[in-house]
Order: sequence, then structure tokens, then C-alpha cells
Amino acid sequence: MKLATLRDGTRDGRLVVVSRDLSVCMPAAVTTLQQALDQWDQAEPLLQQQYQRVNAGGATLAAFDPCACLSPLPRAYQWIDGSAYVNHVELVRKARGADMPASFWTDPLMYQGGSDAFLAPREPIPLADVEWGADFEAEIAVVTTDVAAGADRATAQRSIRLLMLVNDVSLRGLIPGELAKGFGFFQSKPSSAFSPVAVTPDELGAAWDGARLHRPLLSTLNGLAFGCPNAGVDMTFDFPTLIAHAARTRPLSAGSIVGSGTVSNRDADGGPGRPVAQGGVGYSCIAELRTVETLQTGKPQTPFLQIGDRVRIEMVDEDGCSVFGAIDQCVAAPVASS
Amino acid sequence: MKLATLRDGTRDGRLVVVSRDLSVCMPAAVTTLQQALDQWDQAEPLLQQQYQRVNAGGATLAAFDPCACLSPLPRAYQWIDGSAYVNHVELVRKARGADMPASFWTDPLMYQGGSDAFLAPREPIPLADVEWGADFEAEIAVVTTDVAAGADRATAQRSIRLLMLVNDVSLRGLIPGELAKGFGFFQSKPSSAFSPVAVTPDELGAAWDGARLHRPLLSTLNGLAFGCPNAGVDMTFDFPTLIAHAARTRPLSAGSIVGSGTVSNRDADGGPGRPVAQGGVGYSCIAELRTVETLQTGKPQTPFLQIGDRVRIEMVDEDGCSVFGAIDQCVAAPVASS
Repeated sequence: MKLATLRDGTRDGRLVVVSRDLSVCMPAAVTTLQQALDQWDQAEPLLQQQYQRVNAGGATLAAFDPCACLSPLPRAYQWIDGSAYVNHVELVRKARGADMPASFWTDPLMYQGGSDAFLAPREPIPLADVEWGADFEAEIAVVTTDVAAGADRATAQRSIRLLMLVNDVSLRGLIPGELAKGFGFFQSKPSSAFSPVAVTPDELGAAWDGARLHRPLLSTLNGLAFGCPNAGVDMTFDFPTLIAHAARTRPLSAGSIVGSGTVSNRDADGGPGRPVAQGGVGYSCIAELRTVETLQTGKPQTPFLQIGDRVRIEMVDEDGCSVFGAIDQCVAAPVASS
Repeated sequence: MKLATLRDGTRDGRLVVVSRDLSVCMPAAVTTLQQALDQWDQAEPLLQQQYQRVNAGGATLAAFDPCACLSPLPRAYQWIDGSAYVNHVELVRKARGADMPASFWTDPLMYQGGSDAFLAPREPIPLADVEWGADFEAEIAVVTTDVAAGADRATAQRSIRLLMLVNDVSLRGLIPGELAKGFGFFQSKPSSAFSPVAVTPDELGAAWDGARLHRPLLSTLNGLAFGCPNAGVDMTFDFPTLIAHAARTRPLSAGSIVGSGTVSNRDADGGPGRPVAQGGVGYSCIAELRTVETLQTGKPQTPFLQIGDRVRIEMVDEDGCSVFGAIDQCVAAPVASS
């Protein structure tokens, strides 16, 4: 089943059921995605019936327009982001001259993100100061139902209801100072954007093993291929492990979004992956490329995001069809508020 | 105006308008507090009319029972906690052997807290492992309307719609390891609880100067006075400053909760405050008392929270009447989930 939220002037938008090929949609029997997640056992059969109808086609269906979408949850009660691809963490820390403790390979890194105002998947990334060093981070995220505090890994696995893609926008220039204060990210993590469509795990077929999503995550910058690492490879902590970690001391409520962190693959020789231009799978954020450039040439070559830059994040199935629709955002100076 | 949310079996509860003396209430014209905050300009006049009626009394009004309350926002899209009382930060860091950078006096510390599942004000604090070192933290919080990214201090000040008290439960034993990882608090900050009642700023009279709340915050532990520091004293960063800091790189959505951090006053001689038993104003968390004990006797004397301990947090007006109702929580082993 595929679900999206259309902009309708309300804060939570209007839930629609989208056809598998992302061509058409119909208003869902439940008004918002949060409402569906709040009572998933009741909502899911109704939505599945609608999904069959929308896939059967018909004159009454509306064309599905990703540009009319908000993020599937335009605002959420929780957005937690892990750093499951420890390869990425090690590389980015190298870039800012920080060592990585060995425990990072066994104890998940995780931060609480702001969830009150997500960007839409085709909405510009507002950037007030280019010196903040804006970067994209292409990730996978799952949406959970309620998870009791202390839940084990198996319980955590059963809590996964939906998957999405994420652009976890980061302000690299603000991170070192903020992390040095010891309280984690805050100003360095402005609003994230999610893929136009959220999908149930069964849509992913064999690519989803219940814990990891085994497909390349495609990122382009200004139309050029930037990365296609496989999200199922080098994911040190899988989603059930991340969820159980998050729920160790407190419950998670329905609609909690748990992110994978920036998807990153090592090279075949075990070193950092090569850029796409050099035949590698590339990267899911600029910081990682800059680190590799520094390792190769002594200094970074690629600037962080500039006004007018365009980032596209997508995943396609074995037949080349888009699974989640594409996140496609340009970077823009903020619009002055009235 | 005073507002509370009664438990009704739904996730967001039922908004009620409560009389100034907290004796009676009536169902609000808007179903939930988040709905009221989403369209405050429309909701506020309706609720104010009801507030006049509920204060006038009458046979149709229900008795107000704080034990029937959820937190005013049982779940929220954002819970941000500052550390505005830098005195507290300095003391608690001393307790764990960490120095404090001078910038902490000029650049607010702030973390993104979990907001998907708050405890009710009279709900037990579930504690699976006493070795986690559970502590209470008595704080003030404000609830904002929408705040644009980059908002200045004056705009931030105008965004304040409601005030509440908070018990920001902390697991002291998990904090050093978690902060050492660099991503801030996560498992060390389980669900917080808020006062039964949220109040509009006008309810506070001269005690609220638009930026700070000038009244003692009363904490008791097992019925004994623990602290009564004045929330208006030694607050290095006032609420408008905290809100503007939070909104520097991203907007805040209506219903964002911004906390003050643990309220803490220095002693008259500039040193750490004395315990209540020694004639001081005491503390708003156990960690601060333990630090002072360590400074005075070489080691902490007071244990962190044990199963069965009881924490009460309240603020009274000049006439001794409770402003927000009391947070009153015991510590309990978690109930096994089905």
C-alpha cells in the first residue's frame, strides 16, 4: 500500500491512497496519516481496500502529483535519527578531525530531531546563510506503531508500519560548535523533508528483509549522479535494533519516525567508497565526498549547498519504477515572513 | 485563563476550561489543546468566554480533579528544553567532574526532547532499573504559537501563549556515557510530566514580566521541602531568548513547548544555594543537592529516586493558591505490558 498527504491548507494535509505506479490517487477513508497510525488496526483494512481500487484504475481517480504533496507526516510527534551506517560516521568525523570511539560499532548513535514542521518533498530548502554549510543527507526511515518501553528487538520489528525516504538537511558549519557544547544537534538540524509517498513493507518485496532495505538509494546534485549506495549494505544497526535502542527507557508512540542515518557503503577494498565519477557508488551527503577529497588531495573540492542547487533523492525497484516518488528540492534564500 | 486536559480514552484527551481557583471545570468549545493552539486566534475568544462562565460558578460545572488530568498536551509536536539557570549547569557538571566553558554564560544550551508520550501529572514515574539514577527536575515551560525561522527576541516574546510546570525526569546514571557519544541526551531523558493546568500569561499578574516568572517553584520529596528557588532569579536566558535561539535556523510550529531547564538560585554570598534544612532555598533536582553535599562533605549523601519515592512540584500565588495545580508523582516499577 502506498500513501501520500496532499496540501489542502490544513496543518496535517489530506491523506490519499496512491496507486503502485504512482500515477493516480483517491482520498483515503481516514483524513490524515497520523489518524490512520493512531488506530492502524482499524484503518489498515479500509486503506487496503482502497489501494486495490486505486490500482484497478478508473475514470474517477485523480492524477497523483508529487508537487502537491506535503511530507507523508507533515508534522510528527517524534523524529529520531540513528547513525546506522557507521562507515559514514567515521568518515564525517575524520572530516572534522574527531576520532571515533570503538563503541560506535556496538552502541547506536541516535539523536532526537525536530518534528514539528517538516518540509514538503518538492519544497525549497530555505537557507538564510550559505556560510552555515548546508548539506543534504539521503536516508531511509520507518514509521512505527506504539512500542512499549523496554521492547525487545522482535517486538520492535513488528512495530514497523511504513517506510519513507528522508532528506535530513544538516548545517555542517554549525555542527562542531554545537556538539562541543555536549547537548547534541539543534540549530544544525533544520527541517527535514520526506519522500512524497510512504509505503507498507509488503510493497518492497524481497528488497525488505524485515530489518534492512536492500536497494540502492539514488542521490543527484544538480542533475549529476552523486550516490547510489545500497541501503542494505554496511548498515551496522538495522531498524529493529534502532527502534529497540530508542525504546530502552521510554515508550514510542504511534507515528514515531526512525531514520537510518546517511546511507553509506565502503569500497570493495574496505576503504571509503569512491565517487560516482570514479566508478564508485558515491555518497549520500556532500560531507562524505569532501572527506574523501581531503584524503585524496589534501583538501575538500566540492562546496556545500549553494543557493539554486538542486538535490534529488529516489529509490527505484528492479523494474526501474520509483518506489516512494522523488524528494526534489532546490536551495533558496528564505522568503521574508509577513 | 486556565486549561486542562482530562483523560477520556483518546490519545489527546478532552480539553476543559478550569476555574481560577482550580475547583471546577467545563468542557471547552475546542476538543483538544493542540486544536486550540492550531487556531488560537479563533479559539481564544471562545475559551475566554467560557473562562468567565466557569469562574462565575453554577450547578452545571463539574468538580476539577487533577488526578483525572493528562498533561495539558498529552503529546506534542515539539518539546525543547533549555538550561537557562546556568548556575544549575555549573553545579551538575561539577558533580560529574566536567568543567564548564565560559560560552555557556552567553550561548544557551538546549536539547530536543521526546514529546510523543508525556506522563500525566499524577502518573507514576516508571523506573525499570534503580541503577539508572532517576532524578526529577522542576522547571517552568512556555507553549508557543507559530514562530518563523530567524524570529527576533520581540517576535519570540509575542509567541508565548501558555505557561506550565514540568518534571523533566532524568536518568543521571545514563547521562555521562550518552553525552560522551556527542549526540546529546536520548535514553537519559524518559517521558516528562507537566502540571495539571496550563495558564495564559495574564493569569500570572505582576509575577510574569513577559520574559521570566518571578515566583518560587516549590518541590518536595516524600513530603519534605526540597526546594523553593525563585524562577525569576538567576535565569540567565529568559524565555524570549530561548525561543529565538530555538528558531534561529528553522520555524517552530504552534504548540511547541520550551522549557527553562532546572530552576536554580545561587546563595546570597554567590556560592551554591544551601539546602532547605540549612535555611536555604534548596534545589529543583537531587543532583544539585548531591553536588553541594559532595562540596561540603566529600561525597553525596542523598540517593537518587527509589521505588516508592514521591515528588511534588507546585507554584502558589501571593495568596498561597496553587496556580498550575501540582505535579505529584511516585516512582514505580514499570507495569508489564500485555
